[in-house]
Amino acid sequence: MRILLLGADGYLGWPLALELTKKNCEVFAVDNGFKRDMCASLKINPLICIKDFLTRSSVLQATCKASFQALDVDLSNWENVNTLFLEYGPFDTVYQLAEQPSAPFSMISGSTSLKTLSNNVSITNNVLFAMATHCPDAHLIHIGTMGEYGTPNIDIEEGWLDIKHKGKSDRFLFPRQAGSVYHTSKIMTTDLIWFAVRNWGLSATELMQGPVYGLLSDLDDKNDVGQNHYYYDEIFGTVLNRFVAQAVANHPLTVYGKGEQKRGFINIIDSIQCLMLAMQQPAERGQLRIFNQITETFSVMQLAQKVQRAARAFDFRVRIERTENPRVESEDHYYNPKYSDLKKLGLVPTPLTDNALSQMFNSIMRHRSSIDVSKFRMRVSWK
Amino acid sequence: MRILLLGADGYLGWPLALELTKKNCEVFAVDNGFKRDMCASLKINPLICIKDFLTRSSVLQATCKASFQALDVDLSNWENVNTLFLEYGPFDTVYQLAEQPSAPFSMISGSTSLKTLSNNVSITNNVLFAMATHCPDAHLIHIGTMGEYGTPNIDIEEGWLDIKHKGKSDRFLFPRQAGSVYHTSKIMTTDLIWFAVRNWGLSATELMQGPVYGLLSDLDDKNDVGQNHYYYDEIFGTVLNRFVAQAVANHPLTVYGKGEQKRGFINIIDSIQCLMLAMQQPAERGQLRIFNQITETFSVMQLAQKVQRAARAFDFRVRIERTENPRVESEDHYYNPKYSDLKKLGLVPTPLTDNALSQMFNSIMRHRSSIDVSKFRMRVSWK
Repeated sequence: MRILLLGADGYLGWPLALELTKKNCEVFAVDNGFKRDMCASLKINPLICIKDFLTRSSVLQATCKASFQALDVDLSNWENVNTLFLEYGPFDTVYQLAEQPSAPFSMISGSTSLKTLSNNVSITNNVLFAMATHCPDAHLIHIGTMGEYGTPNIDIEEGWLDIKHKGKSDRFLFPRQAGSVYHTSKIMTTDLIWFAVRNWGLSATELMQGPVYGLLSDLDDKNDVGQNHYYYDEIFGTVLNRFVAQAVANHPLTVYGKGEQKRGFINIIDSIQCLMLAMQQPAERGQLRIFNQITETFSVMQLAQKVQRAARAFDFRVRIERTENPRVESEDHYYNPKYSDLKKLGLVPTPLTDNALSQMFNSIMRHRSSIDVSKFRMRVSWK
Repeated sequence: MRILLLGADGYLGWPLALELTKKNCEVFAVDNGFKRDMCASLKINPLICIKDFLTRSSVLQATCKASFQALDVDLSNWENVNTLFLEYGPFDTVYQLAEQPSAPFSMISGSTSLKTLSNNVSITNNVLFAMATHCPDAHLIHIGTMGEYGTPNIDIEEGWLDIKHKGKSDRFLFPRQAGSVYHTSKIMTTDLIWFAVRNWGLSATELMQGPVYGLLSDLDDKNDVGQNHYYYDEIFGTVLNRFVAQAVANHPLTVYGKGEQKRGFINIIDSIQCLMLAMQQPAERGQLRIFNQITETFSVMQLAQKVQRAARAFDFRVRIERTENPRVESEDHYYNPKYSDLKKLGLVPTPLTDNALSQMFNSIMRHRSSIDVSKFRMRVSWK
């Protein structure tokens, strides 16, 4: 299997690259350091500093048995993507993970909002046109987000909805209205992929993912390859990863508003499982297959309470602090998403047990001194 | 009224600018020649060549009684838009007409597709963030397209749909799935505006327009101001304008496929009426108001037959030629859009009568020698 993996230096991209090489895929891994540059501009560091993409890639290349090639390409440029497909294609699978992943980042200013939209929409456009031109049989796997749906007052189906209206009926993408420019950019890329599937008969899988948590990798791995970025700041740290870092730093767990906001969550172990399963069982030509990639739903307050309880086992006695909600979002809403189809594909969920949390605590505690508590509250406001 | 008019050099932008100055509005008109540059790159000319934006603006400025200022600004750059609002704002109304308007252009290559998406999405992003920052009370008027809805098998409502599902209900943007990258870019901008309205409480009107036809202006106006661009080529010429030019040039009327594709159409006279009515009766803060801006529906074959019949009065005996459809679209489909709300606002529709067509023929015939028949078939394929 020839795999093109875009955004290979990321929180999901890198462990996915490792898993693909373990399964003996031929991997063409692309990253231009877009996210590292964003973090640098905001003076944000992950918990541990990891050697740059090409350096850790060369270590991986030297140690893995599979064929692995790392490329530094700006994918927002059409000619670059066209050349990439011409020189290294055709591919069997294209993973499009090269997107700006942070809602708060997209809301800082007109400039970061523009950066989010143009990066995410441009790269997806370029990938789709290149696939249509050079390898229309390839399978596209794209990470969407559960945030595209927002919090509607009806059950959230997996991607599609049959609508009856005035005696006639049709099937549509499930209605989406998101809570940030970032999430809106993901609505846009889903729409673009759906157009490409209808127009060129491409084959695509859209994974509507909830906030991911966990480590998967070994932060203390000696050869740089097993490590992964772990962000705990307000901009790039997902909520559970942030709570664990706060607990370890003896910082209150900061819950926005009432904390009754419900979301679907997923362990990074399962996220990588899903990305592999989608590749091993591809969508058909002319099919856009959509999965809701979550394994459990919790309110933000429930998550905070779980972390508070797990922290006690390590003698961290942290309090939960309700702060003014910087986001514009409903704090008390109906939420009933369906998420059974990935299990049919073979996903074995990893639940958020006390044991799973303890493992996170064990890893993070060893890097306690690196935590910069000023990054827990960067005060990006939606208003 | 202080009006910011973006895309003021366009087919709709310029006549709107004239109308606004007649109504004594203070107009800040912006255009950077984006569309003229695209046309030049494709060697496409409108029927008559019109002096550049700043030149014809200076004539308008010298002759009209209202305050009129023309600015050449690249609106895809955030800092430029921010500065524009700081220096010339606040505004009462912002017209966002600065979008790449052609479906075929967006389908030529990955490069034109990217250009369409990044122009349309970036400018709308910049305008929304600037409004939220500098004049949140201003009313945004944006041109969407009926093409966002595509051709669903249910009645098309004006922007919104109440959905009942498993015993619960909610109200959503009407489902949209478009037939080109251009139309998909308009879905994206609608979604972005809807986010901005919910997040910042902006006031916005989205005009879902069908293909526009007609002249409005006097092509033979002596002082350059009354003239307007009239495109008849495959890329920028809307279907009825193209048919009339074909008839005048004794060229067959080229109908794609079966010609049973139904669409909603509108005379440019009415388009300008609607743009004025929306300004005079703005949406409220926190409201996204959506109108379907069409006055009649026809199949493409019906349009061709109307033109063929009108042509006979001028002794043009043109035949209708069914050509292979370069687009991926349904040629036989249900189509029942609602379009009554603009009439409630005061729109008096201008129907497509034989007389209306005769007036178009009279104007176009005087420029018959300028028609470049090679531009009727530029063969942009969707595949």
